[in-house]
Amino acid sequence: MKRVYNFSAGPAILPEEVLMEAANEMLDYKDSGMSVMEMSHRSKIYQNIIDEAEKDLRTLLNVPENYKILFLQGGATTQFSMVPLNLLKHGKADYIISGHWAKKAYQEAQKYGEIRKVASSEDKMFSYIPDVHKMVFDPEADYVLMTDNNTIYGTKFHEYPDTGNIPLVNDASSSFLSEPMDVSKFGIIFAGAQKNVGPAGTVIVIIREDLISKELPSYTPIMLRYDIHAENGSMYNTPPTYGIYLCGKVFKWLLNMGGLEAIQKRNIEKANMLYDYLDQSKMFFGTVDKKSRSLMNVCFKSTSQELDDKFVKEAKEHGFDNLKGHRSVGGMRASIYNAMPVEGVKALVEFMREFEKNN
Amino acid sequence: MKRVYNFSAGPAILPEEVLMEAANEMLDYKDSGMSVMEMSHRSKIYQNIIDEAEKDLRTLLNVPENYKILFLQGGATTQFSMVPLNLLKHGKADYIISGHWAKKAYQEAQKYGEIRKVASSEDKMFSYIPDVHKMVFDPEADYVLMTDNNTIYGTKFHEYPDTGNIPLVNDASSSFLSEPMDVSKFGIIFAGAQKNVGPAGTVIVIIREDLISKELPSYTPIMLRYDIHAENGSMYNTPPTYGIYLCGKVFKWLLNMGGLEAIQKRNIEKANMLYDYLDQSKMFFGTVDKKSRSLMNVCFKSTSQELDDKFVKEAKEHGFDNLKGHRSVGGMRASIYNAMPVEGVKALVEFMREFEKNN
Repeated sequence: MKRVYNFSAGPAILPEEVLMEAANEMLDYKDSGMSVMEMSHRSKIYQNIIDEAEKDLRTLLNVPENYKILFLQGGATTQFSMVPLNLLKHGKADYIISGHWAKKAYQEAQKYGEIRKVASSEDKMFSYIPDVHKMVFDPEADYVLMTDNNTIYGTKFHEYPDTGNIPLVNDASSSFLSEPMDVSKFGIIFAGAQKNVGPAGTVIVIIREDLISKELPSYTPIMLRYDIHAENGSMYNTPPTYGIYLCGKVFKWLLNMGGLEAIQKRNIEKANMLYDYLDQSKMFFGTVDKKSRSLMNVCFKSTSQELDDKFVKEAKEHGFDNLKGHRSVGGMRASIYNAMPVEGVKALVEFMREFEKNN
Repeated sequence: MKRVYNFSAGPAILPEEVLMEAANEMLDYKDSGMSVMEMSHRSKIYQNIIDEAEKDLRTLLNVPENYKILFLQGGATTQFSMVPLNLLKHGKADYIISGHWAKKAYQEAQKYGEIRKVASSEDKMFSYIPDVHKMVFDPEADYVLMTDNNTIYGTKFHEYPDTGNIPLVNDASSSFLSEPMDVSKFGIIFAGAQKNVGPAGTVIVIIREDLISKELPSYTPIMLRYDIHAENGSMYNTPPTYGIYLCGKVFKWLLNMGGLEAIQKRNIEKANMLYDYLDQSKMFFGTVDKKSRSLMNVCFKSTSQELDDKFVKEAKEHGFDNLKGHRSVGGMRASIYNAMPVEGVKALVEFMREFEKNN
């Protein structure tokens, strides 16, 4: 068995310990005589798995009691419809357009109400986070939507806008559980699992209870109603049972690592290693505003497209995989999620240094 | 490692060979140095996995070229909304109510048009399949929806209604790939993976291309549009990558078993073993109309509730798990999907015989 350093932006690297446990339990989970995949979601043994996952997530993020945790399907993209369908009461919402996915969310919400761009960084190819202090929100808005970390560009909100009484909805897909987060500041936090938490196909929603409404447009599909999922403990129909089991394992891994403060420290250490190198390199440079830099997705370029291609190719040959940047941005992107070990980043910087010397 | 005989109705037993392969590949899929869970869905290696899954499914079911295969999320329940949202053009549809899930589909569709019960077996607790020859369809209906196999009650359509030019939509969740099926008779076939095909969280949709419309109600959520998924090869957003990989393995397992005719033969053999025993037993009896019996879910009761409970308990102690019937029906249910070996059914019948002798 070989393992590469996998810098994929998502689906992405998972902790080796988690994968090993999953492999060991594949045919027989805790003497049940079956795989978790083969278990009825209505069985006691599976109920324990989902309950424990929720409990550990509550501990990790210190989730207040008046928030529900839902394990759903359909990715963050389904949330782009679900949020307006469930939250629009006066028909207005404000969106902060800090990247491709924020824009997608904005476009989708148009179907359901009067949706306003309250700020955008599209003028500079989303290479920065708009200034949260300059944002003026519509007091009649039902919610404000933001995207915590912009995977494609490598930017992140390091301060949150003050929306007063307007619920702030945070698409935290690519920064979820990479650092502590004050859940009470948000109305909803949602995150596709496939970055920092587990396999694709599970999306986690943390929602303040008063935002779970029963008065919804008559055309709201049943699976897009928060109330239905909340009332049924995420089991209105069969949930993505195996994905939730793996998310649970990742939560335990994080607790064992010392929780979110410890992982944040490690993430800062990893990101700084890369950014510090980029800031002094004569060949490579970071592509975004320094104040907006992401801890999870480090985007950079070299002095030419040819060199970029050569770098990506040689890096792959040396066991550093998936370093090619998103097609809309070009260059390189090193996604260094929680599961990427410090040694992986150290080895990458070493390799970059060598590459710079030889080219 | 121990393995029980798992008669769960879903999520359900998977072929041991498939689970073993998955365990072996968990940390390093084909020398890629990563798990399939960790792969970008945009990578060549993952594209091969989904392409191969589709190709094998086409072979197994002999899917005509004018049908698309989609790997989606949200279970069959999401299809209950997606079908009317995408197919209603004149606002009318006919539903055959042969069980709990058919009724759920019917209730959900009410949101979107004039939905008619064209037949129902609710009068006798869904213990039979309505006569397909007596059904009269509305010529203006946009589609007719049926449920192939009714998991809770253990009934199955052994003939299909002739709907003429009206597209027939078949929720085949619990019979999918248990026998050959003439796809060309249907407008849409959909199936949650967690019965016969793979882990929960993937739903397979086979749809005739002319039913993929771009003219949809303005409020249709983007993830509930067949056109979007068809145009993007099921990758408009990140699909449930690991689930699809496992479905692909099950397809290969079926091909190796000799395809759907071979598995049908085995399924008939297994079901007959149980039904033949039930038909001569003095203690146990099948609960549904003989002509409507399912090959996948064999429902039965004993002469008393106490005996039912005792049987389920002792069966579990002897390694026959999940035999308790659905709470709405009571009694017992042995789900004997494709992956249940002949020996499992043989051993169960043996155990029932012993139990009958001793009680």
